[in-house]
Amino acid sequence: MSILCVGSVALDSVETPFGKAERVLGGSAVFFSAAATIFSPVRIVGVVGKDYPFADLDFLAGRGADLAGIERRDGESFFWAGRYHYDLNSRDTLETRLGVFADFEPRIPEAFRSSRYVFLGNIDPTLQHQVLDQVEAPEVVACDTMNYWIEGQRKELVSLLERVNVLLVNDAEARQLADEPNLLKASRWIRERGPEMVVVKKGEHGAILFADNWVFFAPGYPLEVVFDPTGAGDAFAGGFMGYLARRASLAPDDLRRAMIYGSVMGSYAVEDFSINRFRSLDGADVADRVDEFREMTAFETRVDGAPHG
Amino acid sequence: MSILCVGSVALDSVETPFGKAERVLGGSAVFFSAAATIFSPVRIVGVVGKDYPFADLDFLAGRGADLAGIERRDGESFFWAGRYHYDLNSRDTLETRLGVFADFEPRIPEAFRSSRYVFLGNIDPTLQHQVLDQVEAPEVVACDTMNYWIEGQRKELVSLLERVNVLLVNDAEARQLADEPNLLKASRWIRERGPEMVVVKKGEHGAILFADNWVFFAPGYPLEVVFDPTGAGDAFAGGFMGYLARRASLAPDDLRRAMIYGSVMGSYAVEDFSINRFRSLDGADVADRVDEFREMTAFETRVDGAPHG
Repeated sequence: MSILCVGSVALDSVETPFGKAERVLGGSAVFFSAAATIFSPVRIVGVVGKDYPFADLDFLAGRGADLAGIERRDGESFFWAGRYHYDLNSRDTLETRLGVFADFEPRIPEAFRSSRYVFLGNIDPTLQHQVLDQVEAPEVVACDTMNYWIEGQRKELVSLLERVNVLLVNDAEARQLADEPNLLKASRWIRERGPEMVVVKKGEHGAILFADNWVFFAPGYPLEVVFDPTGAGDAFAGGFMGYLARRASLAPDDLRRAMIYGSVMGSYAVEDFSINRFRSLDGADVADRVDEFREMTAFETRVDGAPHG
Repeated sequence: MSILCVGSVALDSVETPFGKAERVLGGSAVFFSAAATIFSPVRIVGVVGKDYPFADLDFLAGRGADLAGIERRDGESFFWAGRYHYDLNSRDTLETRLGVFADFEPRIPEAFRSSRYVFLGNIDPTLQHQVLDQVEAPEVVACDTMNYWIEGQRKELVSLLERVNVLLVNDAEARQLADEPNLLKASRWIRERGPEMVVVKKGEHGAILFADNWVFFAPGYPLEVVFDPTGAGDAFAGGFMGYLARRASLAPDDLRRAMIYGSVMGSYAVEDFSINRFRSLDGADVADRVDEFREMTAFETRVDGAPHG
C-alpha cells in the first residue's frame, strides 16, 4: 500500500560533537521516506529550489519513492543549519532560510489522489487541510506538528485533528496542545478531538502509543554514539506508517509492531548524518534490531504460582 | 530471604497540587520496606528521635519488617518538607532538619549480620562502607546514592562501588558519576568499577537495567494522577530487591521480572501520600499491574515471513 507523504524536502548543515555535514539531504519528507520505503512505497509531495541536488534523491526513488510530486521552482531550497550540544539533547538553530518552501502550496498529482495512507509532515495546518481536501478517500491519516503551529495556528490545527487518525508529536507538544502536564490526560484530550491514536515521541526515552483503553511502550534503542539526532522523529513516523501500510491494518498487534519498527528506524536515523545510515540498511539489519528490542522488553511471569502475595 | 536495609527513617511534610500531608512516614528505608515486604522480609537499620510515631511502623512490622535495628535516640527525627510544582517533575525543598540522623552511625544488630541481601539506602558512602564492614558474607548488595555524595564524597563512593553488585541511581546521577552524558557509556564506566549491574531510574520514563552485554527496559506506568512522587525511587528499589531476594537468584529472567516489580512498586508509591497506598495493596493488585506491564510492552514478530526487506 503506497503512502502519500507531504512535507519538507530540505538541505541541512549540521554540526555535532562528532563532526559536520554541509548541505546534506534533510527535511521531514526525506527522513520519513528513507525509513518508510523499507516497508512500503511512498509518494512524496514537496517543493525544492533549482539549487537542490535532485539526483541525490535517486536513492529514495530506487527504494520505491515516487518523486513526481516534488515541484522544482526558481529560488532557493529550504535550508536549515544547526549545532547540537555536547549531550545531544539540545541544539541551536544557526540559520533557517525557507526559500521556495515559504509559499509552498501542496498540489497532489492526479495519480496520488487515491492514496489511502497519508502522512502529513510538520507544515502549516492550513496546508495539511489542503492536502486532505485533495485526497479522494484517505483511510489512515497520520500527522505531525510542532509548537510553532500549536501557538500560531491553534484553531486550524484543532479542526485538522477531526480528520486525523494518528497524531505523532513529542511529549512537550502533546502537553502544550492539550494544556495539560499529565500525558495520559493530554492524550485523551487529543483523542477526544478526533485521532483514534496519539503517538508521543520522547527521544532517548522511547515512544508511547495511546489508544482507546490501551497503551504501548517502545523503548529508545540505547546507542553508544548518537551521531546526529536530526530526523529521528520523522524516521520513527516512517517506520510506523510504513509498517502499517504494508500490513494494511490497524489491528492492535500490528500497531505494537509498528511502534517497534518506528523506534528501530529512529535509532538508525541517528547513527549517521542525513539519511546516510539508511543507504546500507537491509532487512536483516532491521530484523536483528527488532530481536534486540524484544530482548530489551520481554519478560514472563513465572508459571509456578504467583511470585507475590 | 531477608534483606538488610539501611537508610533514613524520616518524617515528611509534603505539598502537591492535590493536597498536603504533615509529618507522615517517610525516608528511604521506609519506602523501600513498604515495597520490599510484599515479597521478602526486611531488617531495617536506622535512627529516629523520641518524637517519632513509632507505632505507625506497626504496619511494616505486620508485613514482615524487623524494626529491631531502628535506634531511638534523644533529639528530633529526620524531617523533610517539600512542595511539588504543577507538573510534579520538580519540587522545592522547604525545610530539612537532620536531627538525630546527622550523626547516625549504623550499628547492625548481631542477628542481622548474616544477611545475604543488602540494600544501602542513600546515605554517606562512608557509612555505607561501615554497614558492609559489619555484614558477614553479603552476596547481593544494592546501593543508592545522590549528587550530594557524588560531589562531596566521590572517592569513598567510587571505592564503595567495588563492594556493590547493583547500583540504583537516576539518569542525572549516572551521568554525573561517570562524567559522561551517554547512558550506555556511563553505565559501563560504573560497571567497570565494580557493580555487575546498573539500574538507571528515569521517573515517568521508566527504568533501564544495564548488565553485561544486555539491557532491559521497564516502562513507567502511565497514571492519570501522580499524587505524590516522594519515595518512588526507593519503592522501585524495594520491588526490585524484594523480588530478587524472594527468588534468591540473579538469573536474567529473574532480573527482568525484578525490574517490572520495581516499576510496579514505584507506580503504587506515587498514588498516595507516604506509604499509604501500600497499606491496601495485595498480591492480586500487584499481579494485575504486572499483567498491564506485559500488555504495554509485549509484541511478536509475525511468523509468516519477515515483514521487512
